[in-house]
Amino acid sequence: MDERLKKQLAFALEIDKEKSIFRQTSLSGHGRLENDAEHAWHMAIMAYLLKEYANEPIDIGKTMIMCLIHDIVEIDAGDTYAYDEENLKTQKAREDAAKERIYSILPEDQKAELTALFDEFENYASPEARFARAMDNIQPLILNVSNDGGDWKEHAVTSKNVYGRQSKTKLGSETLFAAADEMIQDQIKKGNLPE
Amino acid sequence: MDERLKKQLAFALEIDKEKSIFRQTSLSGHGRLENDAEHAWHMAIMAYLLKEYANEPIDIGKTMIMCLIHDIVEIDAGDTYAYDEENLKTQKAREDAAKERIYSILPEDQKAELTALFDEFENYASPEARFARAMDNIQPLILNVSNDGGDWKEHAVTSKNVYGRQSKTKLGSETLFAAADEMIQDQIKKGNLPE
Repeated sequence: MDERLKKQLAFALEIDKEKSIFRQTSLSGHGRLENDAEHAWHMAIMAYLLKEYANEPIDIGKTMIMCLIHDIVEIDAGDTYAYDEENLKTQKAREDAAKERIYSILPEDQKAELTALFDEFENYASPEARFARAMDNIQPLILNVSNDGGDWKEHAVTSKNVYGRQSKTKLGSETLFAAADEMIQDQIKKGNLPE
Repeated sequence: MDERLKKQLAFALEIDKEKSIFRQTSLSGHGRLENDAEHAWHMAIMAYLLKEYANEPIDIGKTMIMCLIHDIVEIDAGDTYAYDEENLKTQKAREDAAKERIYSILPEDQKAELTALFDEFENYASPEARFARAMDNIQPLILNVSNDGGDWKEHAVTSKNVYGRQSKTKLGSETLFAAADEMIQDQIKKGNLPE
């Protein structure tokens, strides 16, 4: 086996650890917390199924790989909850160090390619990035709605917090933002999300 | 929200159940068993990273979506272990019923598209299908090798069984089959896999 393939397989093995990084979102049916690998898988399929709603034309392969890799840095940096103001302050520094260590396992050209895709995602820097980030918002929303807002209740999240996050969904898809808005309004009406 | 989007989101919620279907492969580091969603996520990233080794040119977006959806039928049909002769006999009938129920949640055009992709994968019917199936073999192999063949030992699997499965890897990638062969030979030498 040559050095290039060895590095690629070493990276493939390293990212297995993402299956042990847990988020603050519960699976539907009030199950256990979801991990990053499951979340990324779910986002990538949703990107494929919902691509007709992207504001701009997107390359779906590029969008899916962005979804799939966007949380690999959390193997070292840990999950930062979307509504955790304190940890959000240090998130970028933690994730930058993680990005350097983990992607350096790959051959140089693939390290460059994947870190560029990650940065593009982080910075909403392309139609694909904006749509992938919309998936990052919509995927936990449908789980949380299926659980009558259980995760929001647990973390005392308000509708203002949720709109703060979902407003970025608009950048990727006006249609999906309208759907999110409808779901959030319904949750407020049901008393699952304080205003 | 219109009917089409409602159906798409209902399907997206339904497939959340795949995260609770467990396989017979352990995570690296002798962790718990892996679930189908994690396995599919891992395969899709590996397809992207290793695409240069496909025997034939492949559309990587198509290959990734095949990897991501290939186990959705197991939500109803359950996981069938690769070396479980008895359950392998009924696998197709169980999966066909599951395919009909689950994909029928989608709008008709997407049901047709995704079931066609699933069938193509099952039947090795395209370069993308053959490469995706190679990922379905290589992904558990690297986990099992990382655990000194622990899953093989648990299920009394022999090198003949393993070669029976991995021989199909060749259809997607001669290079990755050669790498698998090298890993398997090494495992036999280490006493982790009886001949």
